[in-house]
Amino acid sequence: MDIDVPTLVLDAVKCRRNIENMAGRARRLGLRLRPHFKTHQSQEIGRWFRDFGVSAITVSSLRMAAYFADDGWSDILVAFPFNLRELPIARALARRVDLHLTVENPEAVQLLARELQGEAGLYIKADTGYHRTGLGPEQFAEIDDLLDRIAAAPNLRFRGFLAHAGHTYDARGADEIKSVHEASRQVFRSFRARYADRFPGLQLSLGDTPACSVADDFGGVDEMRPGNFVFYDLMQAQIGACALGDIAVAMVCPVVAKHPRRGEAVIYGGSVHFSKDGLTVDGRPCYGRVVQWTGRGWEIPETPVYLKKLSQEHGILQGPGRWVEHLQIGQLLAVLPVHSCLTADINKKYVTLAGERIGMLPNI
Amino acid sequence: MDIDVPTLVLDAVKCRRNIENMAGRARRLGLRLRPHFKTHQSQEIGRWFRDFGVSAITVSSLRMAAYFADDGWSDILVAFPFNLRELPIARALARRVDLHLTVENPEAVQLLARELQGEAGLYIKADTGYHRTGLGPEQFAEIDDLLDRIAAAPNLRFRGFLAHAGHTYDARGADEIKSVHEASRQVFRSFRARYADRFPGLQLSLGDTPACSVADDFGGVDEMRPGNFVFYDLMQAQIGACALGDIAVAMVCPVVAKHPRRGEAVIYGGSVHFSKDGLTVDGRPCYGRVVQWTGRGWEIPETPVYLKKLSQEHGILQGPGRWVEHLQIGQLLAVLPVHSCLTADINKKYVTLAGERIGMLPNI
Repeated sequence: MDIDVPTLVLDAVKCRRNIENMAGRARRLGLRLRPHFKTHQSQEIGRWFRDFGVSAITVSSLRMAAYFADDGWSDILVAFPFNLRELPIARALARRVDLHLTVENPEAVQLLARELQGEAGLYIKADTGYHRTGLGPEQFAEIDDLLDRIAAAPNLRFRGFLAHAGHTYDARGADEIKSVHEASRQVFRSFRARYADRFPGLQLSLGDTPACSVADDFGGVDEMRPGNFVFYDLMQAQIGACALGDIAVAMVCPVVAKHPRRGEAVIYGGSVHFSKDGLTVDGRPCYGRVVQWTGRGWEIPETPVYLKKLSQEHGILQGPGRWVEHLQIGQLLAVLPVHSCLTADINKKYVTLAGERIGMLPNI
Repeated sequence: MDIDVPTLVLDAVKCRRNIENMAGRARRLGLRLRPHFKTHQSQEIGRWFRDFGVSAITVSSLRMAAYFADDGWSDILVAFPFNLRELPIARALARRVDLHLTVENPEAVQLLARELQGEAGLYIKADTGYHRTGLGPEQFAEIDDLLDRIAAAPNLRFRGFLAHAGHTYDARGADEIKSVHEASRQVFRSFRARYADRFPGLQLSLGDTPACSVADDFGGVDEMRPGNFVFYDLMQAQIGACALGDIAVAMVCPVVAKHPRRGEAVIYGGSVHFSKDGLTVDGRPCYGRVVQWTGRGWEIPETPVYLKKLSQEHGILQGPGRWVEHLQIGQLLAVLPVHSCLTADINKKYVTLAGERIGMLPNI
């Protein structure tokens, strides 16, 4: 493969295996898998999910919903608080697909009831402890108000509650992930206790990749919406949601300078290629982990070398002086990203190990 | 202006004033202004610089050089260590424009001498204390070796040394900026002392926006290459390189949720819109500062409200409960970005206050 500039390379075999594994977990756990497509944002990668029985998807914007509707997806949930200003796009989508929207305030329900024209299923955003968006059990009165407004609107159908337990990202190891997940489930139980009689078909939907990857007990949950698992990344490996060998994307970057005396090398590959999301590893900032590029894939060396600093186009690697000394100027290195969702979003395309280019949702 | 999704808005008046001010400083200081175009990456904004006498530019990649060459720029410096793998692009450019490349190792000089075919001016990257790339005065022997290789190549012309004093970004206030700048100049003096006799036309080029914005003494420096000043941002304001009123770009984002009890509101606008670059303000993380959107521009309120957290599409604002209470769902807020270079790079376009769309270098 002929790579001259920083390139996001996709190992399609690992990616399909990640999809297969998650589909298998959902089946064994008796859950509907409604994967979040905001990580890959690619019609072509989206099609791979069909091979594993996926027919309903999650997206993070109405434009992303339209992009996947164009590729034949007909059951789409926009898992982001409805943006009043995009009513025209929602209206057009409601005519084409089985559209599900997320609401958490009366303004959104009111506008949709009055102006959507077509039908939509609504999820109410539940806060199970992450405290980013949504309504918690202490706000049942506000939820009741939303439910009454939805019930009064002939074009809106209440489907259930969705939560994103984003605080599993602070967990380290399967036990901590499971303990956050248990707390989320407990909050969900209070929702079910209150609303199951009124809504016998009530759907409870959970979404974070860490819990979806490792938790065993999803009793009381109907649907899972993980997204990141399609690629995984260093953050998920640090959390304990995957192994390094599961990570399906790497930035392949040329070495442009080396400074063995301070144990540093510089790659062409900076914050405009990786994103600026970082981790702390052994008390130091980390923006990626260097792996060996073979020309047909990558291999993970035992001694870790990390990307310790990013400028706009520069990436600074810290490694043993001897290792730096042996690098060739112009050589390609592969780097596992910290947060694959952002790395993919910035690069706006993939190149597979076979050298095929895979497109993504373009900028508007 | 009709904004429905997160949109990077450009105040062209402030932007042109920033260009005019920097051009005026360069003139008064007797320096060539060779502005870095990696911040705006836009042919249209690039043209505004011509009104202020700019004829030579800096870019951070060969593809960016080609993009600006297409718009008539003929004196272009690529201020990034030459990437051996892009030789074909350099070759094509050397035929079209007065091309200047940056080198810091013999591999690059060797390849260019043997394979470039056309002519290029070379700057050697000097390390004046930032320790990212380049050669410091303790490496004069390596520099001498590079100079001999360049002298032996009939197609390469040595122009001088360029440095980026990126450690001014750690400064707070004009005095600290000037003190870092003085240390850079002192290193440059040792370069001039050693090489002025052999190269009477030696060019010394400095590049950081903080020093270019506030330092008064550029004795011994020939050229300045600031980039960020075209827009400035919160980081430059924190450093002391600009006032908040100088910042020429803002993300305009709709409010999608509010949680007055915890003093939070959620905007549609996350790390895929702002980038994940953050600051620490009063000991807390900050990814942007909220300003009042008037529909025709923005005004800076006295009480600061900050973007405290970013997810992929969510931005979480922290503000007084009353302020949150009074926000309207669907209302637009403007947010000054922490790092305008990355915010611009992610958005890939601007909309001016007059509602005109301005394009940028597209993804390849």
